[in-house]
Amino acid sequence: MLAIPKFPEEFRKLCREELHTSHTSGILPGYVQANLLILPAEEAEDFRDLCFRNPVACPLLAHTVGDPNTLSNSAIIKEGTFDIRADFPKYNIYEKGSLVEQKLNCRDEWGAGYVGFLIGCSYSFERALSQAGLPPRNVVEKKNVAMFKTSKMLDPAGIFIECPYVVSMRPYKTQDLPKVREITREFRLTHGEPIDWGYDGAERLGIEDLQSPEYGDSITIADDEIPVFWACGVTPQLAVETVGHLINGPVIGHTPGHMLVCDIKDENICN
Amino acid sequence: MLAIPKFPEEFRKLCREELHTSHTSGILPGYVQANLLILPAEEAEDFRDLCFRNPVACPLLAHTVGDPNTLSNSAIIKEGTFDIRADFPKYNIYEKGSLVEQKLNCRDEWGAGYVGFLIGCSYSFERALSQAGLPPRNVVEKKNVAMFKTSKMLDPAGIFIECPYVVSMRPYKTQDLPKVREITREFRLTHGEPIDWGYDGAERLGIEDLQSPEYGDSITIADDEIPVFWACGVTPQLAVETVGHLINGPVIGHTPGHMLVCDIKDENICN
Repeated sequence: MLAIPKFPEEFRKLCREELHTSHTSGILPGYVQANLLILPAEEAEDFRDLCFRNPVACPLLAHTVGDPNTLSNSAIIKEGTFDIRADFPKYNIYEKGSLVEQKLNCRDEWGAGYVGFLIGCSYSFERALSQAGLPPRNVVEKKNVAMFKTSKMLDPAGIFIECPYVVSMRPYKTQDLPKVREITREFRLTHGEPIDWGYDGAERLGIEDLQSPEYGDSITIADDEIPVFWACGVTPQLAVETVGHLINGPVIGHTPGHMLVCDIKDENICN
Repeated sequence: MLAIPKFPEEFRKLCREELHTSHTSGILPGYVQANLLILPAEEAEDFRDLCFRNPVACPLLAHTVGDPNTLSNSAIIKEGTFDIRADFPKYNIYEKGSLVEQKLNCRDEWGAGYVGFLIGCSYSFERALSQAGLPPRNVVEKKNVAMFKTSKMLDPAGIFIECPYVVSMRPYKTQDLPKVREITREFRLTHGEPIDWGYDGAERLGIEDLQSPEYGDSITIADDEIPVFWACGVTPQLAVETVGHLINGPVIGHTPGHMLVCDIKDENICN
Protein backbone atom coordinates (compact mmCIF):
# COMPACT_ATOMS: atom_id res chain seq x y z
CA MET A 1 0.00 0.00 0.00
CA LEU A 2 1.26 3.42 -0.96
CA ALA A 3 1.96 6.04 1.70
CA ILE A 4 -0.55 8.87 1.57
CA PRO A 5 1.20 12.10 0.56
CA LYS A 6 0.99 15.21 2.73
CA PHE A 7 -0.73 17.53 0.28
CA PRO A 8 -3.87 17.20 -1.85
CA GLU A 9 -1.98 18.13 -5.01
CA GLU A 10 0.29 15.08 -4.60
CA PHE A 11 -2.62 12.85 -3.68
CA ARG A 12 -4.50 13.90 -6.82
CA LYS A 13 -1.40 13.06 -8.86
CA LEU A 14 -1.41 9.54 -7.38
CA CYS A 15 -5.04 9.17 -8.47
CA ARG A 16 -4.28 10.60 -11.90
CA GLU A 17 -1.50 8.02 -12.31
CA GLU A 18 -3.98 5.35 -11.18
CA LEU A 19 -1.83 4.42 -8.18
CA HIS A 20 -4.54 5.22 -5.61
CA THR A 21 -7.79 3.55 -6.66
CA SER A 22 -9.66 2.99 -3.38
CA HIS A 23 -11.98 5.17 -1.27
CA THR A 24 -10.92 8.48 0.29
CA SER A 25 -12.44 8.12 3.75
CA GLY A 26 -9.91 9.39 6.31
CA ILE A 27 -7.53 10.67 3.61
CA LEU A 28 -5.90 14.04 4.36
CA PRO A 29 -8.39 15.03 7.09
CA GLY A 30 -9.17 18.74 7.22
CA TYR A 31 -9.17 19.13 3.45
CA VAL A 32 -12.52 19.40 1.70
CA GLN A 33 -13.62 16.40 -0.35
CA ALA A 34 -15.97 16.90 -3.29
CA ASN A 35 -18.63 14.89 -5.10
CA LEU A 36 -18.70 14.80 -8.89
CA LEU A 37 -21.18 15.08 -11.72
CA ILE A 38 -20.15 15.48 -15.35
CA LEU A 39 -22.85 16.27 -17.90
CA PRO A 40 -23.20 17.04 -21.62
CA ALA A 41 -23.45 20.74 -22.50
CA GLU A 42 -27.22 21.00 -22.82
CA GLU A 43 -28.07 19.35 -19.52
CA ALA A 44 -25.13 21.10 -17.82
CA GLU A 45 -26.87 24.44 -18.28
CA ASP A 46 -30.02 23.09 -16.61
CA PHE A 47 -27.99 21.50 -13.83
CA ARG A 48 -26.11 24.74 -13.14
CA ASP A 49 -29.50 26.42 -12.71
CA LEU A 50 -30.67 23.60 -10.45
CA CYS A 51 -27.66 24.19 -8.18
CA PHE A 52 -28.12 27.96 -8.30
CA ARG A 53 -31.76 27.60 -7.25
CA ASN A 54 -31.15 24.92 -4.60
CA PRO A 55 -27.83 25.73 -2.93
CA VAL A 56 -28.63 23.85 0.29
CA ALA A 57 -29.30 20.50 -1.39
CA CYS A 58 -26.94 21.03 -4.34
CA PRO A 59 -23.99 23.04 -2.96
CA LEU A 60 -21.86 23.75 -6.01
CA LEU A 61 -18.22 24.35 -5.03
CA ALA A 62 -17.06 24.96 -8.61
CA HIS A 63 -17.57 23.81 -12.17
CA THR A 64 -15.21 23.39 -15.07
CA VAL A 65 -14.94 26.24 -17.55
CA GLY A 66 -14.13 25.32 -21.15
CA ASP A 67 -11.72 22.45 -20.50
CA PRO A 68 -11.44 19.66 -17.90
CA ASN A 69 -8.52 21.40 -16.14
CA THR A 70 -9.97 24.82 -15.37
CA LEU A 71 -12.42 25.59 -12.56
CA SER A 72 -14.77 28.52 -12.02
CA ASN A 73 -13.29 28.96 -8.54
CA SER A 74 -9.53 28.57 -8.24
CA ALA A 75 -9.71 28.72 -4.43
CA ILE A 76 -11.08 25.18 -4.47
CA ILE A 77 -8.16 23.71 -6.44
CA LYS A 78 -4.98 25.50 -7.51
CA GLU A 79 -4.70 26.15 -11.22
CA GLY A 80 -2.52 23.79 -13.22
CA THR A 81 -2.82 20.87 -10.79
CA PHE A 82 -6.08 19.31 -11.85
CA ASP A 83 -7.78 17.04 -14.36
CA ILE A 84 -11.41 16.36 -13.54
CA ARG A 85 -11.31 13.27 -15.82
CA ALA A 86 -8.64 11.48 -13.75
CA ASP A 87 -8.16 13.02 -10.27
CA PHE A 88 -10.93 11.04 -8.58
CA PRO A 89 -9.82 7.50 -7.59
CA LYS A 90 -12.76 5.92 -9.42
CA TYR A 91 -15.60 6.94 -11.73
CA ASN A 92 -19.11 5.60 -12.35
CA ILE A 93 -20.19 5.80 -15.98
CA TYR A 94 -23.94 6.05 -16.64
CA GLU A 95 -25.88 5.67 -19.88
CA LYS A 96 -29.58 6.64 -19.97
CA GLY A 97 -29.64 6.70 -16.18
CA SER A 98 -28.08 3.26 -15.66
CA LEU A 99 -24.63 2.43 -14.32
CA VAL A 100 -22.73 0.72 -17.14
CA GLU A 101 -19.11 0.73 -15.98
CA GLN A 102 -16.60 1.76 -13.29
CA LYS A 103 -13.32 3.21 -14.53
CA LEU A 104 -10.14 4.82 -13.17
CA ASN A 105 -10.53 7.79 -15.51
CA CYS A 106 -13.19 9.12 -17.87
CA ARG A 107 -11.05 10.59 -20.64
CA ASP A 108 -12.88 8.55 -23.29
CA GLU A 109 -16.31 9.60 -22.04
CA TRP A 110 -15.57 13.34 -21.71
CA GLY A 111 -17.07 14.93 -24.82
CA ALA A 112 -17.02 18.38 -26.45
CA GLY A 113 -18.92 20.91 -24.33
CA TYR A 114 -18.99 18.65 -21.29
CA VAL A 115 -19.07 20.38 -17.90
CA GLY A 116 -17.92 18.88 -14.60
CA PHE A 117 -19.47 19.96 -11.30
CA LEU A 118 -17.79 19.67 -7.89
CA ILE A 119 -20.36 19.45 -5.13
CA GLY A 120 -19.78 19.88 -1.40
CA CYS A 121 -20.34 17.02 1.04
CA SER A 122 -21.07 16.66 4.73
CA TYR A 123 -17.67 15.30 5.79
CA SER A 124 -16.57 18.86 6.62
CA PHE A 125 -19.27 19.53 9.16
CA GLU A 126 -19.12 16.01 10.59
CA ARG A 127 -15.53 16.72 11.64
CA ALA A 128 -16.60 20.02 13.18
CA LEU A 129 -19.37 18.28 15.14
CA SER A 130 -16.92 15.66 16.41
CA GLN A 131 -14.45 18.34 17.46
CA ALA A 132 -17.21 20.05 19.45
CA GLY A 133 -17.92 16.83 21.37
CA LEU A 134 -21.04 16.08 19.33
CA PRO A 135 -19.85 13.26 17.05
CA PRO A 136 -22.49 11.97 14.62
CA ARG A 137 -23.71 8.48 15.54
CA ASN A 138 -22.68 7.10 12.14
CA VAL A 139 -19.09 8.26 12.79
CA VAL A 140 -19.07 6.71 16.28
CA GLU A 141 -20.52 3.44 15.01
CA LYS A 142 -18.39 3.50 11.82
CA LYS A 143 -21.54 3.14 9.74
CA ASN A 144 -22.68 4.94 6.65
CA VAL A 145 -25.07 7.78 7.48
CA ALA A 146 -28.81 7.02 7.13
CA MET A 147 -30.32 8.77 4.08
CA PHE A 148 -33.98 9.24 3.16
CA LYS A 149 -35.84 10.34 0.06
CA THR A 150 -38.35 13.04 1.07
CA SER A 151 -41.56 14.54 -0.27
CA LYS A 152 -39.91 17.98 -0.38
CA MET A 153 -39.15 18.95 -3.98
CA LEU A 154 -36.24 20.98 -5.30
CA ASP A 155 -37.24 24.17 -7.05
CA PRO A 156 -37.19 22.89 -10.64
CA ALA A 157 -34.79 24.02 -13.37
CA GLY A 158 -35.13 23.07 -17.04
CA ILE A 159 -35.39 19.30 -17.42
CA PHE A 160 -34.95 18.81 -13.67
CA ILE A 161 -38.54 18.70 -12.45
CA GLU A 162 -40.08 16.75 -9.55
CA CYS A 163 -36.69 16.02 -8.02
CA PRO A 164 -36.96 15.27 -4.29
CA TYR A 165 -34.60 16.38 -1.52
CA VAL A 166 -32.62 13.49 -0.09
CA VAL A 167 -31.70 14.06 3.57
CA SER A 168 -29.13 12.51 5.89
CA MET A 169 -30.29 11.85 9.46
CA ARG A 170 -28.22 12.12 12.63
CA PRO A 171 -29.86 11.68 16.04
CA TYR A 172 -29.17 14.25 18.79
CA LYS A 173 -30.55 15.17 22.19
CA THR A 174 -33.07 18.00 22.02
CA GLN A 175 -30.92 20.18 24.28
CA ASP A 176 -27.98 19.82 21.87
CA LEU A 177 -29.99 20.96 18.85
CA PRO A 178 -29.15 24.70 19.10
CA LYS A 179 -25.42 23.90 19.26
CA VAL A 180 -25.68 21.37 16.41
CA ARG A 181 -27.50 23.94 14.27
CA GLU A 182 -24.96 26.64 15.13
CA ILE A 183 -21.91 24.52 14.28
CA THR A 184 -23.17 23.20 10.96
CA ARG A 185 -24.68 26.54 9.97
CA GLU A 186 -21.22 27.91 9.26
CA PHE A 187 -20.69 25.34 6.50
CA ARG A 188 -22.73 27.39 4.08
CA LEU A 189 -21.00 25.93 1.02
CA THR A 190 -21.77 22.33 2.01
CA HIS A 191 -25.42 21.96 3.07
CA GLY A 192 -25.13 24.23 6.15
CA GLU A 193 -27.57 23.85 9.03
CA PRO A 194 -30.27 21.13 9.22
CA ILE A 195 -33.36 21.61 7.06
CA ASP A 196 -35.70 20.08 9.65
CA TRP A 197 -35.72 18.03 12.87
CA GLY A 198 -37.90 16.09 15.28
CA TYR A 199 -40.60 13.53 14.61
CA ASP A 200 -42.86 16.29 13.31
CA GLY A 201 -40.02 17.26 10.98
CA ALA A 202 -39.89 13.67 9.69
CA GLU A 203 -43.62 13.93 9.00
CA ARG A 204 -43.22 17.26 7.18
CA LEU A 205 -40.54 15.64 5.02
CA GLY A 206 -42.80 12.67 4.27
CA ILE A 207 -40.45 10.13 5.92
CA GLU A 208 -42.55 7.19 7.02
CA ASP A 209 -40.09 4.80 8.64
CA LEU A 210 -36.96 6.21 10.26
CA GLN A 211 -35.51 2.70 10.52
CA SER A 212 -35.72 2.07 6.77
CA PRO A 213 -33.38 4.51 5.04
CA GLU A 214 -33.34 4.45 1.22
CA TYR A 215 -29.53 4.79 1.25
CA GLY A 216 -26.83 4.08 3.82
CA ASP A 217 -27.26 2.26 7.13
CA SER A 218 -30.06 2.18 9.66
CA ILE A 219 -29.17 4.22 12.77
CA THR A 220 -30.78 3.81 16.20
CA ILE A 221 -32.44 6.86 17.75
CA ALA A 222 -32.42 6.73 21.57
CA ASP A 223 -35.51 7.65 23.60
CA ASP A 224 -34.02 10.98 24.65
CA GLU A 225 -32.99 11.89 21.10
CA ILE A 226 -34.69 13.33 18.04
CA PRO A 227 -33.80 12.82 14.38
CA VAL A 228 -32.05 15.81 12.77
CA PHE A 229 -32.13 16.12 8.98
CA TRP A 230 -29.59 17.74 6.68
CA ALA A 231 -29.86 18.12 2.93
CA CYS A 232 -27.68 15.44 1.37
CA GLY A 233 -25.33 15.27 -1.62
CA VAL A 234 -27.27 12.29 -2.98
CA THR A 235 -29.94 14.83 -3.98
CA PRO A 236 -28.17 16.08 -7.15
CA GLN A 237 -27.17 12.51 -8.08
CA LEU A 238 -30.77 11.37 -7.79
CA ALA A 239 -31.90 14.40 -9.82
CA VAL A 240 -29.60 13.38 -12.66
CA GLU A 241 -30.71 9.74 -12.34
CA THR A 242 -34.37 10.84 -12.51
CA VAL A 243 -33.91 12.49 -15.89
CA GLY A 244 -31.22 10.08 -17.09
CA HIS A 245 -33.42 8.69 -19.88
CA LEU A 246 -33.58 12.21 -21.41
CA ILE A 247 -29.81 12.66 -21.61
CA ASN A 248 -27.89 11.78 -24.76
CA GLY A 249 -24.35 10.67 -24.10
CA PRO A 250 -22.59 9.34 -21.03
CA VAL A 251 -23.03 10.95 -17.61
CA ILE A 252 -20.19 10.54 -15.14
CA GLY A 253 -20.16 10.54 -11.34
CA HIS A 254 -17.57 9.53 -8.76
CA THR A 255 -17.83 6.02 -7.38
CA PRO A 256 -19.44 6.47 -3.92
CA GLY A 257 -16.80 7.08 -1.27
CA HIS A 258 -14.14 7.73 -3.93
CA MET A 259 -14.05 11.51 -3.77
CA LEU A 260 -11.84 14.36 -4.91
CA VAL A 261 -9.47 15.82 -2.31
CA CYS A 262 -9.44 19.60 -2.79
CA ASP A 263 -6.84 22.19 -1.80
CA ILE A 264 -9.30 24.20 0.29
CA LYS A 265 -9.67 23.35 3.97
CA ASP A 266 -12.87 22.71 5.89
CA GLU A 267 -12.69 26.01 7.76
CA ASN A 268 -12.34 27.96 4.51
CA ILE A 269 -15.68 26.90 3.17
CA CYS A 270 -17.45 28.69 6.00
CA ASN A 271 -18.31 32.03 4.44
CA MET B 1 -49.09 65.91 -9.94
CA LEU B 2 -45.37 66.00 -10.54
CA ALA B 3 -43.90 64.89 -13.85
CA ILE B 4 -42.00 61.60 -13.54
CA PRO B 5 -38.31 62.19 -14.25
CA LYS B 6 -36.48 60.21 -16.94
CA PHE B 7 -33.94 58.47 -14.73
CA PRO B 8 -34.20 56.39 -11.53
CA GLU B 9 -31.63 58.57 -9.76
CA GLU B 10 -33.88 61.63 -10.18
CA PHE B 11 -36.97 59.68 -9.22
CA ARG B 12 -35.32 58.48 -6.01
CA LYS B 13 -34.42 62.11 -5.23
CA LEU B 14 -38.11 63.04 -5.56
CA CYS B 15 -38.96 60.30 -3.06
CA ARG B 16 -36.15 61.38 -0.74
CA GLU B 17 -37.53 64.93 -0.78
CA GLU B 18 -40.97 63.47 -0.06
CA LEU B 19 -42.42 64.90 -3.28
CA HIS B 20 -43.43 61.49 -4.67
CA THR B 21 -45.34 59.57 -2.01
CA SER B 22 -47.63 57.23 -4.00
CA HIS B 23 -47.15 53.77 -5.53
CA THR B 24 -44.58 52.98 -8.23
CA SER B 25 -46.68 50.84 -10.56
CA GLY B 26 -45.90 51.87 -14.15
CA ILE B 27 -43.07 54.21 -13.08
CA LEU B 28 -39.97 54.11 -15.32
CA PRO B 29 -40.84 50.79 -17.00
CA GLY B 30 -37.83 48.63 -17.81
CA TYR B 31 -35.98 49.53 -14.62
CA VAL B 32 -35.95 46.96 -11.83
CA GLN B 33 -38.08 47.71 -8.78
CA ALA B 34 -37.09 46.27 -5.41
CA ASN B 35 -38.86 45.22 -2.22
CA LEU B 36 -37.46 46.24 1.16
CA LEU B 37 -36.75 44.71 4.55
CA ILE B 38 -34.69 46.47 7.22
CA LEU B 39 -33.70 44.48 10.31
CA PRO B 40 -31.64 44.90 13.48
CA ALA B 41 -28.10 43.49 13.34
CA GLU B 42 -28.74 40.15 15.03
CA GLU B 43 -31.72 39.13 12.92
CA ALA B 44 -30.07 40.58 9.80
CA GLU B 45 -27.41 37.86 9.97
CA ASP B 46 -30.08 35.16 10.11
CA PHE B 47 -32.05 36.81 7.33
CA ARG B 48 -28.98 37.03 5.08
CA ASP B 49 -28.56 33.27 5.56
CA LEU B 50 -32.24 32.71 4.83
CA CYS B 51 -31.84 34.50 1.49
CA PHE B 52 -28.59 32.68 0.74
CA ARG B 53 -30.28 29.32 1.35
CA ASN B 54 -33.52 30.17 -0.49
CA PRO B 55 -32.60 32.32 -3.48
CA VAL B 56 -35.74 31.46 -5.46
CA ALA B 57 -38.20 32.62 -2.80
CA CYS B 58 -35.94 35.31 -1.28
CA PRO B 59 -33.94 36.72 -4.22
CA LEU B 60 -31.55 39.17 -2.59
CA LEU B 61 -30.45 41.88 -5.05
CA ALA B 62 -28.19 43.66 -2.54
CA HIS B 63 -27.94 44.63 1.11
CA THR B 64 -26.53 47.68 2.85
CA VAL B 65 -22.98 47.47 4.12
CA GLY B 66 -22.16 49.53 7.21
CA ASP B 67 -24.28 52.58 6.47
CA PRO B 68 -27.69 53.19 4.84
CA ASN B 69 -26.09 54.62 1.69
CA THR B 70 -23.77 51.79 0.64
CA LEU B 71 -24.85 48.58 -1.07
CA SER B 72 -23.11 45.21 -1.43
CA ASN B 73 -23.69 45.39 -5.19
CA SER B 74 -23.17 48.77 -6.83
CA ALA B 75 -24.58 47.50 -10.14
CA ILE B 76 -28.06 47.69 -8.59
CA ILE B 77 -27.79 51.36 -7.61
CA LYS B 78 -24.97 53.76 -8.42
CA GLU B 79 -22.84 54.75 -5.45
CA GLY B 80 -23.55 58.15 -3.90
CA THR B 81 -27.17 58.36 -5.13
CA PHE B 82 -28.98 56.39 -2.48
CA ASP B 83 -30.44 56.47 1.03
CA ILE B 84 -32.32 53.30 1.92
CA ARG B 85 -34.11 55.21 4.72
CA ALA B 86 -35.79 57.67 2.36
CA ASP B 87 -35.69 56.55 -1.31
CA PHE B 88 -38.82 54.43 -1.15
CA PRO B 89 -42.03 56.49 -1.50
CA LYS B 90 -43.49 55.04 1.71
CA TYR B 91 -42.43 52.77 4.59
CA ASN B 92 -44.28 50.38 6.87
CA ILE B 93 -42.97 50.35 10.44
CA TYR B 94 -43.48 47.12 12.41
CA GLU B 95 -43.03 46.44 16.12
CA LYS B 96 -43.13 42.84 17.40
CA GLY B 97 -44.58 41.74 14.07
CA SER B 98 -47.41 44.30 13.96
CA LEU B 99 -47.74 47.28 11.64
CA VAL B 100 -47.64 50.39 13.85
CA GLU B 101 -47.12 53.27 11.41
CA GLN B 102 -46.64 54.33 7.78
CA LYS B 103 -44.00 57.00 7.17
CA LEU B 104 -42.29 58.79 4.28
CA ASN B 105 -38.86 57.95 5.66
CA CYS B 106 -37.45 55.74 8.41
CA ARG B 107 -34.49 57.81 9.58
CA ASP B 108 -35.71 57.73 13.20
CA GLU B 109 -36.18 53.95 13.17
CA TRP B 110 -32.83 53.05 11.55
CA GLY B 111 -30.59 51.98 14.45
CA ALA B 112 -26.91 51.12 14.90
CA GLY B 113 -26.02 47.90 13.09
CA TYR B 114 -29.24 47.88 11.09
CA VAL B 115 -29.08 46.21 7.67
CA GLY B 116 -31.39 46.91 4.73
CA PHE B 117 -32.17 44.21 2.16
CA LEU B 118 -33.32 44.86 -1.41
CA ILE B 119 -35.29 41.92 -2.76
CA GLY B 120 -36.26 41.25 -6.37
CA CYS B 121 -39.88 41.20 -7.51
CA SER B 122 -41.85 39.67 -10.36
CA TYR B 123 -42.57 42.91 -12.26
CA SER B 124 -39.47 42.27 -14.39
CA PHE B 125 -40.59 38.92 -15.75
CA GLU B 126 -44.21 40.04 -16.08
CA ARG B 127 -43.06 42.62 -18.61
CA ALA B 128 -41.05 39.99 -20.47
CA LEU B 129 -44.08 37.69 -20.61
CA SER B 130 -46.24 40.52 -21.96
CA GLN B 131 -43.65 41.37 -24.60
CA ALA B 132 -43.67 37.72 -25.72
CA GLY B 133 -47.44 37.81 -26.24
CA LEU B 134 -48.13 35.90 -23.01
CA PRO B 135 -49.38 38.69 -20.70
CA PRO B 136 -50.25 37.52 -17.17
CA ARG B 137 -54.02 37.53 -16.56
CA ASN B 138 -53.62 39.91 -13.59
CA VAL B 139 -51.91 42.44 -15.89
CA VAL B 140 -54.64 42.11 -18.53
CA GLU B 141 -57.43 42.43 -15.96
CA LYS B 142 -55.56 45.16 -14.02
CA LYS B 143 -55.87 43.11 -10.85
CA ASN B 144 -53.35 42.26 -8.18
CA VAL B 145 -51.79 38.83 -8.74
CA ALA B 146 -53.32 35.92 -6.74
CA MET B 147 -50.97 34.76 -3.96
CA PHE B 148 -51.15 31.60 -1.84
CA LYS B 149 -49.44 30.41 1.32
CA THR B 150 -48.13 26.87 0.68
CA SER B 151 -47.12 23.83 2.72
CA LYS B 152 -43.60 23.98 1.21
CA MET B 153 -41.13 25.28 3.79
CA LEU B 154 -38.06 27.42 3.24
CA ASP B 155 -34.82 25.78 4.30
CA PRO B 156 -34.51 27.31 7.78
CA ALA B 157 -31.80 29.75 8.90
CA GLY B 158 -31.27 30.82 12.51
CA ILE B 159 -34.52 32.15 13.99
CA PHE B 160 -36.32 31.70 10.66
CA ILE B 161 -37.85 28.24 11.04
CA GLU B 162 -41.10 26.84 9.65
CA CYS B 163 -41.47 29.70 7.17
CA PRO B 164 -43.68 28.71 4.21
CA TYR B 165 -43.17 29.58 0.54
CA VAL B 166 -45.75 32.06 -0.70
CA VAL B 167 -46.46 31.65 -4.42
CA SER B 168 -48.07 33.86 -7.04
CA MET B 169 -50.35 32.11 -9.53
CA ARG B 170 -50.84 32.97 -13.21
CA PRO B 171 -53.01 30.75 -15.43
CA TYR B 172 -51.64 29.61 -18.81
CA LYS B 173 -52.56 27.11 -21.49
CA THR B 174 -50.64 23.84 -21.16
CA GLN B 175 -49.06 24.27 -24.57
CA ASP B 176 -47.65 27.66 -23.52
CA LEU B 177 -45.97 26.28 -20.39
CA PRO B 178 -42.56 25.52 -22.00
CA LYS B 179 -42.35 29.08 -23.38
CA VAL B 180 -43.52 30.59 -20.06
CA ARG B 181 -40.88 28.58 -18.19
CA GLU B 182 -38.18 29.53 -20.70
CA ILE B 183 -38.92 33.27 -20.55
CA THR B 184 -39.09 33.59 -16.78
CA ARG B 185 -36.16 31.24 -16.25
CA GLU B 186 -33.76 33.95 -17.39
CA PHE B 187 -34.79 36.16 -14.47
CA ARG B 188 -32.57 34.25 -12.10
CA LEU B 189 -32.20 37.19 -9.70
CA THR B 190 -35.97 37.60 -9.29
CA HIS B 191 -37.67 34.24 -8.65
CA GLY B 192 -36.81 32.78 -12.09
CA GLU B 193 -38.93 30.00 -13.54
CA PRO B 194 -42.10 28.61 -11.90
CA ILE B 195 -41.63 26.30 -8.90
CA ASP B 196 -44.62 24.12 -9.83
CA TRP B 197 -47.71 24.00 -12.09
CA GLY B 198 -50.94 22.17 -12.80
CA TYR B 199 -53.64 20.97 -10.43
CA ASP B 200 -51.30 18.27 -9.16
CA GLY B 201 -48.77 21.03 -8.51
CA ALA B 202 -51.38 22.90 -6.44
CA GLU B 203 -51.86 19.72 -4.43
CA ARG B 204 -48.11 19.26 -3.92
CA LEU B 205 -47.96 22.85 -2.63
CA GLY B 206 -50.90 22.23 -0.26
CA ILE B 207 -53.15 24.82 -1.94
CA GLU B 208 -56.75 23.81 -1.26
CA ASP B 209 -58.82 26.44 -3.00
CA LEU B 210 -57.41 28.21 -6.04
CA GLN B 211 -60.23 30.76 -5.88
CA SER B 212 -59.34 31.86 -2.33
CA PRO B 213 -55.90 33.45 -2.41
CA GLU B 214 -54.42 34.56 0.93
CA TYR B 215 -53.15 37.77 -0.69
CA GLY B 216 -54.10 39.72 -3.82
CA ASP B 217 -57.10 39.13 -6.04
CA SER B 218 -58.92 36.00 -7.15
CA ILE B 219 -58.11 35.15 -10.80
CA THR B 220 -60.26 32.94 -13.04
CA ILE B 221 -58.61 29.88 -14.58
CA ALA B 222 -60.23 28.89 -17.90
CA ASP B 223 -61.03 25.26 -18.71
CA ASP B 224 -58.12 24.99 -21.13
CA GLU B 225 -55.65 26.52 -18.66
CA ILE B 226 -53.61 25.31 -15.72
CA PRO B 227 -52.38 27.29 -12.73
CA VAL B 228 -48.65 28.13 -12.84
CA PHE B 229 -46.90 28.98 -9.56
CA TRP B 230 -43.89 31.23 -9.00
CA ALA B 231 -42.15 31.87 -5.69
CA CYS B 232 -43.32 35.25 -4.46
CA GLY B 233 -41.67 38.20 -2.72
CA VAL B 234 -44.25 38.02 0.05
CA THR B 235 -42.32 34.96 1.29
CA PRO B 236 -39.51 36.89 3.02
CA GLN B 237 -42.02 39.42 4.43
CA LEU B 238 -44.09 36.61 5.91
CA ALA B 239 -40.92 35.01 7.31
CA VAL B 240 -40.08 38.21 9.16
CA GLU B 241 -43.69 38.56 10.32
CA THR B 242 -43.64 34.97 11.60
CA VAL B 243 -40.73 35.66 13.94
CA GLY B 244 -41.66 39.29 14.58
CA HIS B 245 -42.37 38.66 18.27
CA LEU B 246 -38.72 37.56 18.73
CA ILE B 247 -37.25 40.76 17.28
CA ASN B 248 -36.27 43.65 19.54
CA GLY B 249 -36.58 47.03 17.87
CA PRO B 250 -38.50 48.24 14.84
CA VAL B 251 -38.52 46.29 11.58
CA ILE B 252 -39.13 48.28 8.40
CA GLY B 253 -40.61 47.26 5.06
CA HIS B 254 -41.83 49.23 2.06
CA THR B 255 -45.54 49.97 1.91
CA PRO B 256 -46.93 47.43 -0.60
CA GLY B 257 -46.75 48.80 -4.15
CA HIS B 258 -44.41 51.61 -3.05
CA MET B 259 -41.14 50.17 -4.26
CA LEU B 260 -37.61 51.33 -4.93
CA VAL B 261 -36.72 52.15 -8.53
CA CYS B 262 -33.18 50.82 -9.17
CA ASP B 263 -30.61 51.85 -11.79
CA ILE B 264 -30.32 48.34 -13.19
CA LYS B 265 -32.62 47.32 -16.05
CA ASP B 266 -34.78 44.21 -16.29
CA GLU B 267 -32.58 42.58 -18.91
CA ASN B 268 -29.49 43.03 -16.74
CA ILE B 269 -30.78 40.85 -13.93
CA CYS B 270 -30.80 37.86 -16.24
CA ASN B 271 -27.46 36.24 -15.46
